[in-house]
Amino acid sequence: MSIVLSRDSRVRVMENTVTNAEKYFGQFCSLLAAYTCRTARLRDKADQLVKQLTDFANTENPELRATVRNFAQDLAKVQDYRHAEVERLETKVVSPLKLYGAHIKQTRAEIKKFKQVQKNEIKQLEKLEKLRQKSPLDRQMISQAETSVQRASADASRTTHQLEEMIDTFQKQKLKDLQKIFSDFVTIEMVFHAKAVEVYSSAFQILESYDLERDLEDFRAKMHGVYGHYNARPLKDTMPSPAVSWALTGQSTQTTIRSQRRDEEEESTEHSAEEDPVEDLRGQGQAPQQ
Amino acid sequence: MSIVLSRDSRVRVMENTVTNAEKYFGQFCSLLAAYTCRTARLRDKADQLVKQLTDFANTENPELRATVRNFAQDLAKVQDYRHAEVERLETKVVSPLKLYGAHIKQTRAEIKKFKQVQKNEIKQLEKLEKLRQKSPLDRQMISQAETSVQRASADASRTTHQLEEMIDTFQKQKLKDLQKIFSDFVTIEMVFHAKAVEVYSSAFQILESYDLERDLEDFRAKMHGVYGHYNARPLKDTMPSPAVSWALTGQSTQTTIRSQRRDEEEESTEHSAEEDPVEDLRGQGQAPQQ
Repeated sequence: MSIVLSRDSRVRVMENTVTNAEKYFGQFCSLLAAYTCRTARLRDKADQLVKQLTDFANTENPELRATVRNFAQDLAKVQDYRHAEVERLETKVVSPLKLYGAHIKQTRAEIKKFKQVQKNEIKQLEKLEKLRQKSPLDRQMISQAETSVQRASADASRTTHQLEEMIDTFQKQKLKDLQKIFSDFVTIEMVFHAKAVEVYSSAFQILESYDLERDLEDFRAKMHGVYGHYNARPLKDTMPSPAVSWALTGQSTQTTIRSQRRDEEEESTEHSAEEDPVEDLRGQGQAPQQ
Repeated sequence: MSIVLSRDSRVRVMENTVTNAEKYFGQFCSLLAAYTCRTARLRDKADQLVKQLTDFANTENPELRATVRNFAQDLAKVQDYRHAEVERLETKVVSPLKLYGAHIKQTRAEIKKFKQVQKNEIKQLEKLEKLRQKSPLDRQMISQAETSVQRASADASRTTHQLEEMIDTFQKQKLKDLQKIFSDFVTIEMVFHAKAVEVYSSAFQILESYDLERDLEDFRAKMHGVYGHYNARPLKDTMPSPAVSWALTGQSTQTTIRSQRRDEEEESTEHSAEEDPVEDLRGQGQAPQQ
């Protein structure tokens, strides 16, 4: 009987191993899937910030425009690395953990099969025990029951060894997978963070080298340039309706700024850029930094 | 009249500056607040993973337990740095952007005030124009109207200069703040990523140095130790009910493992740890690595 109990204990150890793996690997899987998902959402939010920064850059004077645009490009680069991080986490961390679920189910099915064999052994032992108590002198019946017990025990013993080998392989694989999956997790995170440090260092330099005074000069020239232009215009006796004059003023403002910037910088590319800020960003946006 | 139009143009430039700042700084504020919030959510998810890893460690053999526990501690350390990142983003990025909103509102109120002054100037000019057309010979009335125009113009001129100074300060502050806020953002992110690289490097070493074979030996000893223990027990003729025997088996299993580990390691701290895995984690959990 003790060998039956011993077998049961061993199966309990094996079953606990699998149950534990199922519980925790399942949780690791859903937590790491959620972690990956939240990283993706962080990337999305930063992508929106990149878009707004680019839009904002287009409305600003050349110096700030170039700075903000370059900064936004670096921020976008970090998001590209974050995107790679998300994809790699899905492939090398979440997917293997998902596959693990199927693997565990298979092992549980094997344990269940064994338990049937074990139950049969106990049934035969109980039968023999009853027989011994009821008819201790019926040698033939007892002998038959003993043979059944031996057969059932042999089955259980063989299955236990098979199960033990399987669980040994399972445990070995579990430990290997655990080490591999979390090492991959750490490597993916490490690569991302290292790349982020690199790109943000460049972004910091961009913001540091921004020439605020130059930008402010541009802004002042814009305000006073308009004033100067109107002073130079001949006085008229008739007054146009305010709405029309303000619309015209709008157009004149543009022209004034453009010719003034031409005088200042003698650089014609800058002025066509004023007409199309998007084109400017693609092409000569960095000109003021040269 | 042209000086009125010129003033209007200048106010348009100033107004655009403020409107633009309001629009984009508002967006930067809500986007960076959301970015901070999503970073906090990522931290929370990783904290849950740390908890599960610690729970899992408590169910495993000493070798894996120490490895997973140390790994979880490093992962927790990264979350502490992420938490600091979140707090610093709130203090040095989101809060200044929020304050900016109030600053912009104040500036808009000043512009509105100026526009009233400007409107009065136009009103006086229109009055004078009508008078010149209707009664070109009424010198006294025209003279009075001219005085009113002069007064209104003087008001407008003074207010424009005040406004110009204010907008100049506003723009200078805007550019400074923009540079400061995004530099702070980059610095905060850079510090976090650099710390993460550092901690993950240590975590990688922990996972690399994990002795899988030793853990597997422990596991095999657990399985076979139970077997050996029951073989050594004296045979009994009466069979206890399966439920009771299995319950006893469960207890015996624990005892067996504990005494076996004592024989193997001759280290008593390890065994009290077996009784209280939480205590073990706080105290001597790293013993097997020594």
